[in-house]
Formats: sequence, C-alpha cells, structure tokens
Amino acid sequence: MKTLRDIGEDALIDRLIDLVPQDPSPAAGPGDDCAVIDRDPTSPGLLLLKTDAIVEHVHFLPSAEPRAVGWKAAARVVSDFAAMGGRPEHFLITLALAPETPVAWAEDLYRGIGDCLETFGAVLAGGETTRVPTGSAAVISISATGAVLRDHVVLRSTARCGDAIFVTGKLGGSLQGKHLDFIPRIEQTQWLVSTFKPSAMMDLSDGLAKDLPRLATASGGGFIIDPGALPLSPGCTPQQGISDGEDFEILFTIEPARATALLAAWTARFPDLALTRIGEITAAAQGMNLTGGWDHFRSTPAGA
Amino acid sequence: MKTLRDIGEDALIDRLIDLVPQDPSPAAGPGDDCAVIDRDPTSPGLLLLKTDAIVEHVHFLPSAEPRAVGWKAAARVVSDFAAMGGRPEHFLITLALAPETPVAWAEDLYRGIGDCLETFGAVLAGGETTRVPTGSAAVISISATGAVLRDHVVLRSTARCGDAIFVTGKLGGSLQGKHLDFIPRIEQTQWLVSTFKPSAMMDLSDGLAKDLPRLATASGGGFIIDPGALPLSPGCTPQQGISDGEDFEILFTIEPARATALLAAWTARFPDLALTRIGEITAAAQGMNLTGGWDHFRSTPAGA
Repeated sequence: MKTLRDIGEDALIDRLIDLVPQDPSPAAGPGDDCAVIDRDPTSPGLLLLKTDAIVEHVHFLPSAEPRAVGWKAAARVVSDFAAMGGRPEHFLITLALAPETPVAWAEDLYRGIGDCLETFGAVLAGGETTRVPTGSAAVISISATGAVLRDHVVLRSTARCGDAIFVTGKLGGSLQGKHLDFIPRIEQTQWLVSTFKPSAMMDLSDGLAKDLPRLATASGGGFIIDPGALPLSPGCTPQQGISDGEDFEILFTIEPARATALLAAWTARFPDLALTRIGEITAAAQGMNLTGGWDHFRSTPAGA
Repeated sequence: MKTLRDIGEDALIDRLIDLVPQDPSPAAGPGDDCAVIDRDPTSPGLLLLKTDAIVEHVHFLPSAEPRAVGWKAAARVVSDFAAMGGRPEHFLITLALAPETPVAWAEDLYRGIGDCLETFGAVLAGGETTRVPTGSAAVISISATGAVLRDHVVLRSTARCGDAIFVTGKLGGSLQGKHLDFIPRIEQTQWLVSTFKPSAMMDLSDGLAKDLPRLATASGGGFIIDPGALPLSPGCTPQQGISDGEDFEILFTIEPARATALLAAWTARFPDLALTRIGEITAAAQGMNLTGGWDHFRSTPAGA
C-alpha cells in the first residue's frame, strides 16, 4: 500500500487535485502562490486567496519562542501575497493545540501573528481553536484574503524563453534562525509590479532546487543558472543555498533587455537588499536540472 | 501555569482576540458563524469567510471511512455559510498528515470533500499539504469564501426580546453516525432568508446548551426553552439532545407574529424536515441556564 512518503508532496497534489470540482475559468488556481479570483470583471482589483500551515517538530521546535512562531506562521502567508504582486487583507487563524498547552504560549503565538498583521496592514477576520490529542503536534493553519490590481498580478506560469532570472536577498541557512524572523518582500514586490513588472514570480519556500523548476515547468520552459552567481547566506555552500528551503525570498523573471536598468533602479531604491541575476529561462528541452530542496513527506532534503 | 484545558475554548478565544489587529468596521467579525466582509459598498453582495478544522481522534476516528470524513470536513464549513443566509464559493483545503498515511486514504478523503463541493456548487481554489510527525493526529483544515446578498445576511447577534426560537431537524445522537453524513441546510436557509427572514441565526455545532446561550448573549438577551418541545433524534434523552453537539441543524429566531405562518409554509415546502418552535428570547436577566455542550479543550461534554 503506497504511502505519502513513497510518492512525495508534488505527486500527492497531482493525484488529489482532480478529485474535487475546479473553478471552470480561474484567473489562477491551484499551483500558483495564491488563487486569483475575479469576482467582478468591472473592478480594477482581483481577490487573492491563500492557505498555509506550520506544524510543531516540522516547521518549528517546541522550544522556539511562540511569538516568533506566530510571526513565521503569518509571514509565510504574507510572502505568498507578495509573490503575486498583491497585499494581504483579512486573516483566518486556526490553532489545533493539545489541552496541556500553556495559555501564555497561545497568547504569545497570537501576539506574533498580530505583529505581522500590523506590520503589513492586515486584520483578523476570524478563527478557530480545536484540540489535538495529548502528544500530537500542534498545527497552526492560516488562511487569508488579499488584493491585487488586475494590471499588477504576476503568475509563476508566464515566464518566456530568454527571460533573465533574478532572486532577492541571500539563499540558504534558514535553520540558523532566518526561518523564524524573515521579512516578507511586500515592499519590494509592490515596487516591482509598478516599475519593472516581472514576467513571472513566486516566493522561495521549498528551496531554489524545488521552486525554480516549478516556475520554469509552469511556464513551459527550462532554466540554466550559474551556481557561482548564487547569493549565499554567510557560511552556506551553493548546495545549501539551493536546498535548505524557507528562504522566503522572491524569485522572478523579466525580459533580458530590462535587466540592467532594473538592477540600477533596485540598488538605488533598496540599497540594503541584494538583487542578483542568477540565470535565464530556456526552452524546456535545453535547461539543466537541480537536485535538492524540501519535500514535506520525505522529511529530508528531497535530493539527499 | 494555566493550560488550555483549565480555561476552556470560549475563554481562550476571548483572551486571544484582542492580541491581533481587527477590522475597524466589520460587517460581522470574529464570533459569528462567518466573517462578513463588505469589499464594495456599491455591490448587492457581501463576501463571507470561514475556517474550520477537524482532528483525528477528536472529530473522527482512524477507522472512519475517509470519504465520509472528507464530506464532514467540507459540510461543516458549508453549514456555516447556511447559517449566515449565504452560499459557499471557493475552498482552500489543508491536509496535515503523517508520512505513513496511505495515498488511497488521502484520495478518498478528497473524494468526500469533492462530493460536498459538487452538491453545493462550490469549487476548489487551492490547498496545502504538510507532514505531521509519525504518531501525531491528522488535521484537516478547510477555509472557504462564500457569498450572501446584503439584504439576506443574518447575524447571530440580532435577536430581539420576545422572538420565537426555532430549530430544524432533530437534536442529539451525533455519534451514532450523523456527524459524518449530515446535510448542511443551505436549501432551507436560502428559502428562509427570502421568505421569512430570521432575526438571528446560527448553526448548531457544539450542542444547543452551548450554542443557544451564544446567540442570546450576542444579542444582549436571554432565553427560555421548553425541554419537552425539543425535537430529539431516536433514542436520545433531552440532555443528550442539548449536549451531544455536531447536530449541524439551524437555530434561528423570528418575530412571534410570523411564527404560525412560517410553520405552515415550512411544512408545505419541506415536508420531510422538522421545524420546531422550542422557546423564546427574553431579557438578559430573565432567561434560564442550560448545562452541557461540547468544549474542545475539555474533551468531554463541558457540563459532565
């Protein structure tokens, strides 16, 4: 009998997705960072939907500061709105916790969520608390709505052959703490979509080795990257940089003719955050492969 | 150090809710069956948001049919849209499962979710799969958007003193199987809001003993009910009827002058589903108390 560990996360999603009714004409559906819902074709805005969960022992340790865990839980969702060119609006927070959980732990977790919502101008719309059996891992599941202008939305599936590939910040080393206190790149993507609109964009949650192939494949292409050009966190090897996951930096593509002007404008606008050109989109048959990255059901870097 | 078991679910929510930024002018926020978002005051429609989770060993047993578990997970959410006078639209599904979970179990779970979405005209917008550690309980967290006409929305906080209290169907006995195959009352509430619009409404998820005081308190009132009038599932005592929880019937109030006409019209329209007048809304100081009902963090009926 096959288990989730046997087939891994991507194959599981492929097998599940056709078992439920789909939106017949989605602006963007399952597979992108957020779902994009066009509720009113006369409106300049689109509705974004996202859900994400973090699990004790998997995404955070019981010893982690609960306020940092709350920040992380909410910031992961905010990062997905950034990846579409949008902003977060209304949050729904589900806590599944053991009865032995200290009240103070839950309160600090909520304070961390509150820190993040306040930073990015979002609000609580509702929530749910439920018990898990004693000894079961805590699960924090967060869903949210967001908004994006119709002219600003960027999918992951619309890169073109020859486009330059960029990444923000530094890659790797998430377990040294970055995974708990990263800053979603809302400010940067808001600037990008209104000045140098990317041809495709996503956030890096499972590592470049997992996520770049997703963007390229969704766009019907391949990719080449220069491993020597990767912006690495201090002390990280290139393999760690592409494999560690939970970078929550932004990966995007843009037509190559605009790449130099983008870099100059970026450096003037965001002098403290690296932007690095790491490669280009190719035809599907001409790209390279990457190994590594995070698979939830295999619990170690998938290429290990 | 106080734990969640010590304070219970309602006190926990009270302590958490002020720790995060709130919508400054919500149409209805945390505390009702759904959040109500007014994204466009010129539109006749309002956006509804809901999140809900079910947990292995708490809401379903490992031996339960996964397709029935999937139905239940989605139908609980659909029931909340019914309780506002609305309809479900876009679903986000989060599965947190151990790596040993059979792929076939996850597929059947999704088929059950799909059955429910198809029955009620909703679609999948996105999802998330993540691992829980081996031995941890599975968590299925579902969020969804819905729609309701501005003129049709019914809150739980707007009952008036003297209003008649009604409940659909039969109460109690959820553990004999009803909790896995109940039918959300969308058809009935759609009819109600366009013919005999209730003054307040909610669905019964934690038992009448928990939920009726919530409706009355939210409305600034109390209640009296006639225990002898309660519509009970076969073999249930009145105490089971008010305590078992997971009825997913609809509790609503309406001005007493319309009660008789409502009952006649209901019986003609829904001859196979009971509608029972069980009591009335009183001033806050004049109501009665009920004991029992379900508290998540105390794991037994709260009055036991």
